[in-house]
Amino acid sequence: MPATPYLRVDLARLRGNVARTAERTAAAGVALRPHVKTHKTIEIARLQLAAGAVGISVATVGEAETFVRQGATDVFVAYPLWLDDQSAGRLRDLMPDAALAIGVDSAEGAANAGRLLGDAGLEVLVEVDCGHHRSGVSPDRAGAVASAAQRTGLRVRGVFTFPGHSYDPAALESAAADESAALRAAADALRAEGIEPRVLSGGSTPSLAHSDTDLLTELRPGVYVFGDAQQWELGTMAPEEIALVCRSTVVSRAGGRLVLDAGSKVLGADRAGYATGYGRLPEHPHARVVMLSEHHAIVDLGDTPLPALGSQVDVVPNHVCNAVNLVETLYAEESSGELRPWPVTARGLNS
Amino acid sequence: MPATPYLRVDLARLRGNVARTAERTAAAGVALRPHVKTHKTIEIARLQLAAGAVGISVATVGEAETFVRQGATDVFVAYPLWLDDQSAGRLRDLMPDAALAIGVDSAEGAANAGRLLGDAGLEVLVEVDCGHHRSGVSPDRAGAVASAAQRTGLRVRGVFTFPGHSYDPAALESAAADESAALRAAADALRAEGIEPRVLSGGSTPSLAHSDTDLLTELRPGVYVFGDAQQWELGTMAPEEIALVCRSTVVSRAGGRLVLDAGSKVLGADRAGYATGYGRLPEHPHARVVMLSEHHAIVDLGDTPLPALGSQVDVVPNHVCNAVNLVETLYAEESSGELRPWPVTARGLNS
Repeated sequence: MPATPYLRVDLARLRGNVARTAERTAAAGVALRPHVKTHKTIEIARLQLAAGAVGISVATVGEAETFVRQGATDVFVAYPLWLDDQSAGRLRDLMPDAALAIGVDSAEGAANAGRLLGDAGLEVLVEVDCGHHRSGVSPDRAGAVASAAQRTGLRVRGVFTFPGHSYDPAALESAAADESAALRAAADALRAEGIEPRVLSGGSTPSLAHSDTDLLTELRPGVYVFGDAQQWELGTMAPEEIALVCRSTVVSRAGGRLVLDAGSKVLGADRAGYATGYGRLPEHPHARVVMLSEHHAIVDLGDTPLPALGSQVDVVPNHVCNAVNLVETLYAEESSGELRPWPVTARGLNS
Repeated sequence: MPATPYLRVDLARLRGNVARTAERTAAAGVALRPHVKTHKTIEIARLQLAAGAVGISVATVGEAETFVRQGATDVFVAYPLWLDDQSAGRLRDLMPDAALAIGVDSAEGAANAGRLLGDAGLEVLVEVDCGHHRSGVSPDRAGAVASAAQRTGLRVRGVFTFPGHSYDPAALESAAADESAALRAAADALRAEGIEPRVLSGGSTPSLAHSDTDLLTELRPGVYVFGDAQQWELGTMAPEEIALVCRSTVVSRAGGRLVLDAGSKVLGADRAGYATGYGRLPEHPHARVVMLSEHHAIVDLGDTPLPALGSQVDVVPNHVCNAVNLVETLYAEESSGELRPWPVTARGLNS
């Protein structure tokens, strides 16, 4: 067994999550292009592609490189990259092996990308802001960005948005409604410029069940493969669906506290406003991780007797994408109990 | 130049921070045993040792292995390790090359360590809780833990504590007072068992200036080499002393927002209760990182005109230890402007 703390994947649950979302999107007639930033692992991307995903979404050029080198042939960098000679050259090198697209959210960004890769026929999707207020142009300006892109030789595939404000227990449905409204307006703005969008892409794990699959042509959820304490607390995935835990060891019970060796260097330090702590314990649903250091999780177990020193306890990280990025290897557990090491090949590739 | 986002070290400031703390502890007649979890980088450990550090502190067996293999000869694992055959064997393998000590905070932990490594003469320090309420036994129980350790052949070096409740703008001095009180009581508890502690070890970067160097024999700060936005906002390091930034690129100004490509996968997601945002900008002290995703930092610049798309902006991470653990390489800038790549050799070694 690996030394604790380590990230353990329940393979049966993972396969169930992959299959369930693939079936639902197929039944709704919408393409699934999962965001692999969540797992950064080729084995999981292969499961998703085998289940019918049309391609993958990534966040960085480095992720694109890693997955193309391992066989991915259709990759969307769902991010408004600001390209330079280096990053454009890296993308150009991938284009013989994969259909590539990137995001743009400004006329300047489009002109910059076009100057560097317009001759290569790079495809772009215009990012629009549907209410998360991160990157993304307002939908009414999407036409101008698309036109700027087209003028420099880029091929406009369509429009995309990330309804990240769905990460709020009260906004699961409304964020999906915002997503539809923004994508519809953006598509209209492109048409007003004479550009017909082939793809209207959205999706986040919390809002997935509410996305308008009559309007959208593509969904890009990421977290759904594993789930995490955020999805648990948002009510969007059941604890029984969560496929990744951090296996940890009880190192201290000093002062009546339960201290585990899983800290922010393996769980991540994420704590959203709605989160009730720094992670959850599947075997103790009422417990809360009340304090987190780099190598300590302090757990309030209420009236439950403390597990023994040296015993092992599972913790579900709050935000699984950041937890996975902290390890070199995931350990995938077969139904036989055997653990298969899966390298997190795209770990740390922030550029 | 490396692609953004990357972590850039100002070598002159780093050397200044290393020298200043070394001089102050030397002048106070107390040993400095810096915690290398902050930087995980042998080049920086060598600077600290060359400046007079008596040895290093680490958090995990993997960190101990990495630094001993690179030449460290005196290593304290400042953590209440729960050893098993594997981890004990790894420590045993290091003992010919380095003076090793570990933390214990229970009689059971001491007995367990003694069973595995008592014959090897491993040294231990009893961890006591001085008010941070993480790991560490209460000071009055330190004697019982020390006795249990000694009975199994472990050699008791002394007592240690981490005044982590100093991470509060109102508690810098009081945490240091708690540190003294706890270490004094713990030392007395050892003496009552006939065990004379040779080392009374404490220290955190925020409380460092207030530690009682008449009582303590050793200090273990970590963050002081770099500083970070937490130290800036606690008022314990000046912005001009901060030696590490994340160099990032402006990727979007959509909607009037400043969007940088530095997200939680390079800055870390830490946000303490007193923090005013997710990081600080040295060139724009009034600015705040108001929102952080995995690859986006959204910055509120107030009335300042937004920097140009494609331009580069530095961000100081909130908690530098977690930021460093997210990269393979630090780029250390000489006064000539040349960048030296330093591998973060102990990155991700959580066990």
